Amino acid sequence: METGLLDAFSQEYKKLLENELKSLVEKLNAPSIIKESMIYSLEAGGKRIRPLLLFATMDAFGLDPRKGLLAAAAIEMIHTYSLIHDDLPSMDNDDLRRGKPTNHKVFGDAIAILAGDALLTYSFEVMGNIPNENAAPETKLKLTVEMAKAAGTEGMVGGQVADMEGEKKALSLEELEYIHIHKTGKLLRFSVLAGAILAGAKHCQIEDLSAFAHHLGLAFQIQDDILDVVGNEHLIGKPVGSDTTNQKSTYPQLLSLDGARDALQMQINLSKEYLEKTGLNTKLLMEITDLVASRDH
Amino acid sequence: METGLLDAFSQEYKKLLENELKSLVEKLNAPSIIKESMIYSLEAGGKRIRPLLLFATMDAFGLDPRKGLLAAAAIEMIHTYSLIHDDLPSMDNDDLRRGKPTNHKVFGDAIAILAGDALLTYSFEVMGNIPNENAAPETKLKLTVEMAKAAGTEGMVGGQVADMEGEKKALSLEELEYIHIHKTGKLLRFSVLAGAILAGAKHCQIEDLSAFAHHLGLAFQIQDDILDVVGNEHLIGKPVGSDTTNQKSTYPQLLSLDGARDALQMQINLSKEYLEKTGLNTKLLMEITDLVASRDH
Repeated sequence: METGLLDAFSQEYKKLLENELKSLVEKLNAPSIIKESMIYSLEAGGKRIRPLLLFATMDAFGLDPRKGLLAAAAIEMIHTYSLIHDDLPSMDNDDLRRGKPTNHKVFGDAIAILAGDALLTYSFEVMGNIPNENAAPETKLKLTVEMAKAAGTEGMVGGQVADMEGEKKALSLEELEYIHIHKTGKLLRFSVLAGAILAGAKHCQIEDLSAFAHHLGLAFQIQDDILDVVGNEHLIGKPVGSDTTNQKSTYPQLLSLDGARDALQMQINLSKEYLEKTGLNTKLLMEITDLVASRDH
Repeated sequence: METGLLDAFSQEYKKLLENELKSLVEKLNAPSIIKESMIYSLEAGGKRIRPLLLFATMDAFGLDPRKGLLAAAAIEMIHTYSLIHDDLPSMDNDDLRRGKPTNHKVFGDAIAILAGDALLTYSFEVMGNIPNENAAPETKLKLTVEMAKAAGTEGMVGGQVADMEGEKKALSLEELEYIHIHKTGKLLRFSVLAGAILAGAKHCQIEDLSAFAHHLGLAFQIQDDILDVVGNEHLIGKPVGSDTTNQKSTYPQLLSLDGARDALQMQINLSKEYLEKTGLNTKLLMEITDLVASRDH
């Protein structure tokens, strides 16, 4: 697989994004402890898959991805807030994330809750403050409303609720998909949509890109479940088999490992079909899709 | 004091608001437990002072307050989310609010955190969805960004952080004012600003109304502290003297009870001066100001 194009693109925009996230928080006139807590989790790294999807989508339309920097920062803030709150003792009770102590282990539960609240709130301010030359007020308003939908009860929060309700219960494939489509899928999908909205995409392109992102999100989650069975602990950053230990319903458990691999391939194929339908220059998005299918962490 | 006008106005719009809040959550396509938890806290009552300020400000401009219904609902959602998160065991650890069990006592900590997250997120969707005939996209965008500022680290969240950091410490009057201006003042001020923005107020009117709301917010907080010393437990819904028991810094403690009463009167006078400067029909806002000064709960 040729990934040179994506590698260079990813490195450049990851750095731009990370600098932007830090400076957006640093400039806030607020108690230093809350800014430290926000920056701690924003800097915890990760693949930055959501911003990358946004940048690559803008590139597919021939637009300068830099024009999407604030939108990408807003989305990454929402993703980061969701990790901080999910890790809390009353939620998943995780002490480590990517090998680093979780936010509440460093700053305490109260500041962790408030840092999550602050990132979620700030994301809407950041999205609304995109310069007018990069997005008209109508466009920014659409981005704001769609981001709220993707992150709220009809999206990510709804998925997290269903996930918690479904813990230690045998889920059907339909219930498992509801969780994934909402908990991770809706914000991944919004990352692609935001790029398309910023590019002034036509309705049919929005539909195809939306379908692409939907299937990519499912592929991402199936691969996550597969890695929990066959992955390298050191690379994935958590013990292999932890889903089984935690009695979590997974694709390999519902479909067998081979069945899960078939399902992954099907989602990857569907993702690519919808990408091709757009008629855009989707080289980078294709590479991201291949990366999702073959990633080892 | 003549409060007949405000009483009727308040009754009418409180009912409209409460119906709107309930139906906005009911129509969400989401797991029922999260909707129940959101509605539980939205229905917990209270004075609805923020929506009332918004409606009364619109009325001062001769505008139909109904056009501010979604903006008022958005603000009340943010206020409600902040109460849910503040009551959590890792924050203020309160079991009761207005005589009812707090959200996490009924639904558990995890759902309470998520219900707060959901209300905060939904508020931006609701604000962005004001019909175009009531507010142009530019206006809605301005409301969204200003609401995020009032609720975030430079506003309410920053005030809550400073409040927690200042617990069990002797605060200066300046530190105490920082907490109040941010923790409660910024969202109260935004409620007035939102009404003015919806009414297309001139810059100088926005400035005067902003100063009015700033002083009203301080008056509100000073009266809160005074009630903790001289109030009726049954009416205020918490034990008299609880601030002293919790070693909280307060106005009576820093200024003496008489000094706090003088400070209250000064803030009320300043509020009214700025109101008069606007040249608007501020009868209702004047009554709200008198109510803040003389309230017994």
